[in-house]
Amino acid sequence: MIGRLAPPWDRLLLDARLATLRDDLGAYGVIEDGALAWKDGLIAFAGPRGELPGEPAALAARVESAEGRWITPGLVDCHTHLVFAGDRAQEFERRLQGASYEQIAREGGGILSTVRATRQASEEELLAASLPRARALRADGVTTLEIKSGYGLDFDSERKMLRVARRVGEELGLTVRTTFLAAHALPPEFAGRPDDYIAAACGWLPRLHAEGLVDAVDAFCEGIGFTPAQTRRMFQAARALGLPVKLHADQLSNLGGAALAAEFGGLSADHIEWTDEAAVRAMAAAGTVAVLLPGAFHVLRETKLPPLAELRAHAVPMAVATDLNPGTSPLQSLRLAMSLACTHFRLTPEEALRGATVHAARALGLHDRGRLLPGQRADVVQWEVAHPAELAYWLGGDRVHSVHVAGRRVD
Amino acid sequence: MIGRLAPPWDRLLLDARLATLRDDLGAYGVIEDGALAWKDGLIAFAGPRGELPGEPAALAARVESAEGRWITPGLVDCHTHLVFAGDRAQEFERRLQGASYEQIAREGGGILSTVRATRQASEEELLAASLPRARALRADGVTTLEIKSGYGLDFDSERKMLRVARRVGEELGLTVRTTFLAAHALPPEFAGRPDDYIAAACGWLPRLHAEGLVDAVDAFCEGIGFTPAQTRRMFQAARALGLPVKLHADQLSNLGGAALAAEFGGLSADHIEWTDEAAVRAMAAAGTVAVLLPGAFHVLRETKLPPLAELRAHAVPMAVATDLNPGTSPLQSLRLAMSLACTHFRLTPEEALRGATVHAARALGLHDRGRLLPGQRADVVQWEVAHPAELAYWLGGDRVHSVHVAGRRVD
Ligand SMILES: [Zn+2]
Ligand SMILES: [Zn+2]
Repeated sequence: MIGRLAPPWDRLLLDARLATLRDDLGAYGVIEDGALAWKDGLIAFAGPRGELPGEPAALAARVESAEGRWITPGLVDCHTHLVFAGDRAQEFERRLQGASYEQIAREGGGILSTVRATRQASEEELLAASLPRARALRADGVTTLEIKSGYGLDFDSERKMLRVARRVGEELGLTVRTTFLAAHALPPEFAGRPDDYIAAACGWLPRLHAEGLVDAVDAFCEGIGFTPAQTRRMFQAARALGLPVKLHADQLSNLGGAALAAEFGGLSADHIEWTDEAAVRAMAAAGTVAVLLPGAFHVLRETKLPPLAELRAHAVPMAVATDLNPGTSPLQSLRLAMSLACTHFRLTPEEALRGATVHAARALGLHDRGRLLPGQRADVVQWEVAHPAELAYWLGGDRVHSVHVAGRRVD
Repeated sequence: MIGRLAPPWDRLLLDARLATLRDDLGAYGVIEDGALAWKDGLIAFAGPRGELPGEPAALAARVESAEGRWITPGLVDCHTHLVFAGDRAQEFERRLQGASYEQIAREGGGILSTVRATRQASEEELLAASLPRARALRADGVTTLEIKSGYGLDFDSERKMLRVARRVGEELGLTVRTTFLAAHALPPEFAGRPDDYIAAACGWLPRLHAEGLVDAVDAFCEGIGFTPAQTRRMFQAARALGLPVKLHADQLSNLGGAALAAEFGGLSADHIEWTDEAAVRAMAAAGTVAVLLPGAFHVLRETKLPPLAELRAHAVPMAVATDLNPGTSPLQSLRLAMSLACTHFRLTPEEALRGATVHAARALGLHDRGRLLPGQRADVVQWEVAHPAELAYWLGGDRVHSVHVAGRRVD
């Protein structure tokens, strides 16, 4: 690696303030008067300018000034449902008239209305509907994102969603990690037969995996979703294929979802408002990341906080994601998710930034990004801020100067 | 007026869906298959296409299709402090470590740290710092905004702020209404002498007004601000000049601020979390608008809701604004303020939209905008949404297609 990343580099940025998120450098892993270089899409240098191994002009084909801007790793949104068709704004109006999330679900609204629209949409229509949402995330600094299926709920429609997810990444020059979430809701044709549905979905998985469409497997383990036993069957199907799992766990009640995710060595347990300390300990032991989703917490006006003290005490990495979805988190900005995590969950701005970079990458099983370190991917955002705390501070507005993915400008 | 706005018009949009916010047309004042025309910067036609007085090509110099897009009046942000210098993100970090707003104020942080930075900045520096914030509002659909002074707290610095506010409007092609808010905080040179400070500030007002820099007068009437008696003196100075008043009222405690604003026939009483029903009655009688500021409510994690039932019962118009300021509401999107008003205050999306258009205009004393009606200014936003409820539904992202101010495109 060292030899491969030796000068001459493709690009060298000077006059940069680096929030490297290295653990050995204090808050944010800051390097003032820093220099950042990349080569062949990988970071080749990220350190104080004074430690450059020579004169800048001799080190890189292109040398530029970052004009004192703050630079962070590209943001990673590790939990989204951004591929969907249809419109749920009217349901939002209904919730403001007092209907609960569970009521709306029982009435056949909620997820199932999105399922109907998503099934009806052609692949091209679904792509056209989804691209603006991914573009909004990118415009706000996201370079890697996860996208779940789960509004198709039949083989062809789940496949269509996963294909669209891949195409979103190709169109926008972003890394997209796909997650098979057929166990999101029970489709009407399986009404009263959830076990049959899980059996069917487990049967779709190898075929979709063989097409290269699945990077991980997820389920909605909840009173209004699937039982722990059904979730376990889905996880076993994933394990048989060597696929990692993650879980919508303990959002509205404690069904032991986070513990189940940990039992399967899950990448992450997500939401986890009702998770208890024993499960947090299991997550720590299994290396399972806690994915905090303050958007849904905010929209649903939840009051039960995730077990933050326990997560900190057991050093479970905390990620922050948008949960971008039409029902409970119509949130199109990861910076705004960071702000909500600070306001609602009392994360510090630094925890929020680590949660949207290095910890989020880990929640996707990606260890090649999330920090500014030689050898990591050159996913790099330059920001118009005076301090990294500003990234979690502003609500709205535009703070991005430029976004590079693997050394290539994409914004 | 009718003759003046007769065809030929400057521009005619067909295939438009109009959210006129007229009161006589049901929810949002919707006109499907609508047409919208303007002439000399004023709306000349806003109605069903079928009611056009002739063939489109014969009616306007330029006829275009809005391609089915939803069109609303330009948004009006009727309460901002967006002219300031310096950075308060670190204070945000401190609040997350447990410091209260009042603690920070007592320690000389808070408003006074912004005062120091704003005093030190040149007019050009202050303009450069402020323009991006106003641009962010405009990019999100705002065509008219209010900007307050109140970080200068001496004659020259207050004057500098108000001059910058005017220049923001000129640079961006927006209407800016300026508000003199010297009674925002006590400057250090008047420590212990708030009455002397109010006397001094009352003396600055005629001079600033003579320069055309003041459209209204405001004060921060609060335990950590100024007393009702001091506020009353400031209001009397305004009245002597024929200037309308408004007030930061009853945000953290009930000092009778909203009633005081109503007593002076105030344009608006703002925040009003602690306002009681008697004061709401007084506001209704005086025509004083209730300006709801959910950004500060959100950031400060307040729990005391404004008296929404009373405001509705007494038909007090409710406006929604960003309160854009570096301390308690770093909120750069009026759409996001609408969303926060729905989530925190349970406004309906329609109330939020009226609150960010027609009611906000009224809070600024402007009756020539805020609805799509012949004779109103052609401040017009075309949106990429499937329903007007979406404007309050999405958190983040970009939903603006185009923004026109007085018939001229500004985005
Ligand atoms: Zn989710
Ligand atoms: Zn204010």
